Amino acid sequence: MIYFQCDYAEGADSSILSRLVETNMEQSEGYGLDKHSERAKELIRKRIGREDADIHFLSGGTETNRIAILSALRPYQGVISADTGHIAVHETGAVEATGHKVLTLLNTDGKISASHVREYVKEHYESPTAEHTVQPGMVYISFPTESGTLYSKREIESLYSVTKECGMYLYIDGARLGYALASPACDITIEEIAKLCDMFYIGGTKCGALFGEALVILNDNLKKDFRYMIKQNGALMAKGRMLGIQFEALFEDDRYFKITASAVDKALKIKKAFKDKGIELYGSSETNQQFPLLTDEQIAKLSKDFVFEVWGKEKDRTIVRFCTSWATSDENVEALIAAIEKL
Amino acid sequence: MIYFQCDYAEGADSSILSRLVETNMEQSEGYGLDKHSERAKELIRKRIGREDADIHFLSGGTETNRIAILSALRPYQGVISADTGHIAVHETGAVEATGHKVLTLLNTDGKISASHVREYVKEHYESPTAEHTVQPGMVYISFPTESGTLYSKREIESLYSVTKECGMYLYIDGARLGYALASPACDITIEEIAKLCDMFYIGGTKCGALFGEALVILNDNLKKDFRYMIKQNGALMAKGRMLGIQFEALFEDDRYFKITASAVDKALKIKKAFKDKGIELYGSSETNQQFPLLTDEQIAKLSKDFVFEVWGKEKDRTIVRFCTSWATSDENVEALIAAIEKL
Amino acid sequence: MIYFQCDYAEGADSSILSRLVETNMEQSEGYGLDKHSERAKELIRKRIGREDADIHFLSGGTETNRIAILSALRPYQGVISADTGHIAVHETGAVEATGHKVLTLLNTDGKISASHVREYVKEHYESPTAEHTVQPGMVYISFPTESGTLYSKREIESLYSVTKECGMYLYIDGARLGYALASPACDITIEEIAKLCDMFYIGGTKCGALFGEALVILNDNLKKDFRYMIKQNGALMAKGRMLGIQFEALFEDDRYFKITASAVDKALKIKKAFKDKGIELYGSSETNQQFPLLTDEQIAKLSKDFVFEVWGKEKDRTIVRFCTSWATSDENVEALIAAIEKL
Amino acid sequence: MIYFQCDYAEGADSSILSRLVETNMEQSEGYGLDKHSERAKELIRKRIGREDADIHFLSGGTETNRIAILSALRPYQGVISADTGHIAVHETGAVEATGHKVLTLLNTDGKISASHVREYVKEHYESPTAEHTVQPGMVYISFPTESGTLYSKREIESLYSVTKECGMYLYIDGARLGYALASPACDITIEEIAKLCDMFYIGGTKCGALFGEALVILNDNLKKDFRYMIKQNGALMAKGRMLGIQFEALFEDDRYFKITASAVDKALKIKKAFKDKGIELYGSSETNQQFPLLTDEQIAKLSKDFVFEVWGKEKDRTIVRFCTSWATSDENVEALIAAIEKL
Repeated sequence: MIYFQCDYAEGADSSILSRLVETNMEQSEGYGLDKHSERAKELIRKRIGREDADIHFLSGGTETNRIAILSALRPYQGVISADTGHIAVHETGAVEATGHKVLTLLNTDGKISASHVREYVKEHYESPTAEHTVQPGMVYISFPTESGTLYSKREIESLYSVTKECGMYLYIDGARLGYALASPACDITIEEIAKLCDMFYIGGTKCGALFGEALVILNDNLKKDFRYMIKQNGALMAKGRMLGIQFEALFEDDRYFKITASAVDKALKIKKAFKDKGIELYGSSETNQQFPLLTDEQIAKLSKDFVFEVWGKEKDRTIVRFCTSWATSDENVEALIAAIEKL
Repeated sequence: MIYFQCDYAEGADSSILSRLVETNMEQSEGYGLDKHSERAKELIRKRIGREDADIHFLSGGTETNRIAILSALRPYQGVISADTGHIAVHETGAVEATGHKVLTLLNTDGKISASHVREYVKEHYESPTAEHTVQPGMVYISFPTESGTLYSKREIESLYSVTKECGMYLYIDGARLGYALASPACDITIEEIAKLCDMFYIGGTKCGALFGEALVILNDNLKKDFRYMIKQNGALMAKGRMLGIQFEALFEDDRYFKITASAVDKALKIKKAFKDKGIELYGSSETNQQFPLLTDEQIAKLSKDFVFEVWGKEKDRTIVRFCTSWATSDENVEALIAAIEKL
Repeated sequence: MIYFQCDYAEGADSSILSRLVETNMEQSEGYGLDKHSERAKELIRKRIGREDADIHFLSGGTETNRIAILSALRPYQGVISADTGHIAVHETGAVEATGHKVLTLLNTDGKISASHVREYVKEHYESPTAEHTVQPGMVYISFPTESGTLYSKREIESLYSVTKECGMYLYIDGARLGYALASPACDITIEEIAKLCDMFYIGGTKCGALFGEALVILNDNLKKDFRYMIKQNGALMAKGRMLGIQFEALFEDDRYFKITASAVDKALKIKKAFKDKGIELYGSSETNQQFPLLTDEQIAKLSKDFVFEVWGKEKDRTIVRFCTSWATSDENVEALIAAIEKL
Repeated sequence: MIYFQCDYAEGADSSILSRLVETNMEQSEGYGLDKHSERAKELIRKRIGREDADIHFLSGGTETNRIAILSALRPYQGVISADTGHIAVHETGAVEATGHKVLTLLNTDGKISASHVREYVKEHYESPTAEHTVQPGMVYISFPTESGTLYSKREIESLYSVTKECGMYLYIDGARLGYALASPACDITIEEIAKLCDMFYIGGTKCGALFGEALVILNDNLKKDFRYMIKQNGALMAKGRMLGIQFEALFEDDRYFKITASAVDKALKIKKAFKDKGIELYGSSETNQQFPLLTDEQIAKLSKDFVFEVWGKEKDRTIVRFCTSWATSDENVEALIAAIEKL
């Protein structure tokens, strides 16, 4: 069986493994205060063009979202998210567990708009009983979104503007950031992202690392005492260097961007194959996740050799997900395309 | 410089690294539902003699304590701990952050006693205003303790008894469990531990893993829906197999017990060297952490070649900690002993 | 100006005030352990026909909901509510502040149905990644609903059934319970309610008390240690007898039911006046809140003499709320009806 | 039986009850936005000499402490308190339930000192692993303390200084504030208190009100959005005017200070009677609570006619508490003194 089920089915990019082996017997400070973590942060700061950024390495996406959001909100504030946002649906209420409501707006192609946010916030503050409802304190977006779609630079600028206008923060969940930036449809750079939000994270787990996310804090108000937040939430790894070493490997020679670019390239080939076959795709993903709408018969045929995920229903067809990753081989992509052609 | 500062200064036991390399391109289910995690759990269940145990792999000690304790207590309950317990002093209030008070009892050589616990609980329930105070719902002990000391089998039996008597749970923090079990002063086996508590964890991070702890749930009341707890707390790793692979390596051929035994052996040689030199030790540690009381002059001398941690003050001397680990070499131990002899 | 704005604009029913004056210099036990609280509980137990019920007096609705829900859920569970439910929209995220997500279902006339709940819960448990989402642990309904509508006895039976089927609790928010039970459209008695849910509360604040709600716990699983929950949440009043005295007055000679019946009677007269005038009403309220859809001109006219609340928009008309209470006088109702006739 | 058990055994000062009766049928805005609440705040602002103070009325002490502390701390911060502080021992972990650790310092006569606080905070920040421990963010003191003792003006000045020095807040729990200010041993005024802390509350429940505490926020940083905090914690009373009316009555013509002065006067007479009889008192209380150390025989004798509370043990004698209040009559005091003389 060939897996296109997710982008975390394998271990790590070879550069990471060999680095772990090389450094294994080095002795270093614990809790992320080692030289590898320091150097990885320096590499990221240079790459995003923000020498003033605070960077913290964490183990996973839910952990990162949970701590980042908790650290930014006052007790009575909530975070605005698309109703399809990862924090709204797939984190077992991790944000609520820290005491904060996720305030959902109806998504369009996986996204929310600045005007919708502005309207929501305005309505809150204009209510004579505003204090009986949760105050919006932050906007959360995923880039790319959960369905693989992209915000344009202009859309992110507008969202950032509306947060500044309304005394809120903009936080970008970059679990698959590499796959967004590598897309030909992406019109924003990581340097620009680092100027257009208060916090974002560079996803490692789904982009070639064994595990690990790099949380980048840009707004000075959010920097103070962040390591206390990490420790209190059980997320300060004793051997923090494991995270530093991985991001060091990923941010040397732009490896992070190369391996994700290769994955997107493969996903777009698969997309083209579906389209050429006349098979419609759900949403407008131009990244490493593609969502064809298949008939039961087509699913049965493809399931013989390939593993992929059922995503939802759309009338008489099923939305499924094919995912490429840094680990997807050309052979597997060719095999899939051949199978699609035969549908 | 030679490090005796802690037991998490290096990477991982070689068996783990090579296993990670070998399995890297395997494709597997995410979130710990892979075959390596399954096999690691099976190995542990066999080793502890409890086929009925539920086992979950988590990343670190604070994370494990936080989730385990939260999952077991009612909102108004607290957890009894020695005042020196890790949860009471070195986890940035992680337990309180989940809403639960840590109820501290004065320690004796790092430990608390069943009779002290019984008296505390009795006093709580006898109070006419019991509901104005936090109800004790669990007893937390570390084995070995934070100062390297050991509970005897009898002491653990008594603590377990008192929890059953009083409607509480007994939870054992085994961050350094391997070093306890390997001590010649230890009179309890892991199979016995697995019969004398409701939950305990087998520490990986400080005992040879890159990271990872194996939480063992023995009491049926505590098993239900535990994976929800893990996910909600941001601790369900997408590539959960990383944890499975490590514990698989550690529990094949008792590797976990061999590497920790070697560390304890070295620590006891260092202890003997201090004693032979007439230097007193703080507490009665027979495990991999040793706490000599040194003069400023002795500290100055040893600091030239060795890194170790300052632990506290005792009149005119300073308590310092020397730590061995699975990674400590014979040469380094010999060098340290030679230096001690020259003090 | 004549107020029809809400049902908490005045102080308390005269029976309460005189009782407070009479008992003022009595000396009694604190924290609700006094004889008035005991007698009030006894009166309620008799009236609802459940001698086994545990009853606790609390100060307000949000406090009661917050504590009741927190006490019943496991950390990873959420509570199902109509999207218009008070806990979902008007409690500043009080439930989320205790760590629990409110899981909203689209309302129909302010209500949710058993079949909708069943479908939602089924979908949760059938998902292969159920643990990545919040587990439904309770169903919350308001009776009457926020828009004054009523569940039928059959609907409540069905909701109760589905909770038992799915291992959940049914909790009924009775902030305005008196007004529901007094409605001619109500086909369920308080004795029946006390057999068809796990917990409910009898609202005092909006039904004639200075403040206070009587939480009735029927399911034995939810009874244990409840006073700890109250104290921890800052809701155990030192002079708890204030609550007992009020409910004693309200449950002697069915005063609670008489004063709310009078309010509903007045509200239905107002409703009839609107209908007779050809003015449509929003929803199907048969209780003390009525929601006519008015034109701007009609609002301007009525605003000269009456205070009422703007509720929402419906195309070119505005939904407003007229509320009667135990304190509404016949004269005021007549004045309003006269004004409606002149619209 | 004559009660000296506590200061909340009766209802309310007559001025309050008559005011409640007079205003009962007034119609007013809900949620504390009424004119009585406004006027009560104005009276308090004038009396404390701080026109800039934000004032909020809450129902009880635990509720007030819980919300005040939660609103002021960052998630990883704790609150320093005497080990005998109400929040440390008698609120069922209410502060921990909001996620914050209570950091206890050993008390001296119920109090903590500025130098002890400074030392504690210094040690925290000097630790190389500060972030592994809870950061102190606030100092909590009770005035008078739980054992009736008083801080001098100089002590409060020093505590306030140390909080400013160390970036913390000073919060004063004034559950029995009236009894402190009325003591001949008190050398500080309410105007001075209002200049020497960031927040304090004026206790109503134990000083003549049916219920209610007035939280006074002095530091601008703590004022923003406080009503959201109150509502989220279930503490925003629908008929908030009940609180306003009571504090209006208490702060007209200094009634609050007169009724508490009378209680202290009576307590000191009782204290003198014990002393004259050669009976030692625990602590140095000069307020409305007195703690004689009695033999079993003395307790037996006094228990025939009087109700009082057992407080603790001191060798062969028992510490008991006699409490006066605004409601204590001269006759009862005389009867008690006569009984003491006959011991």
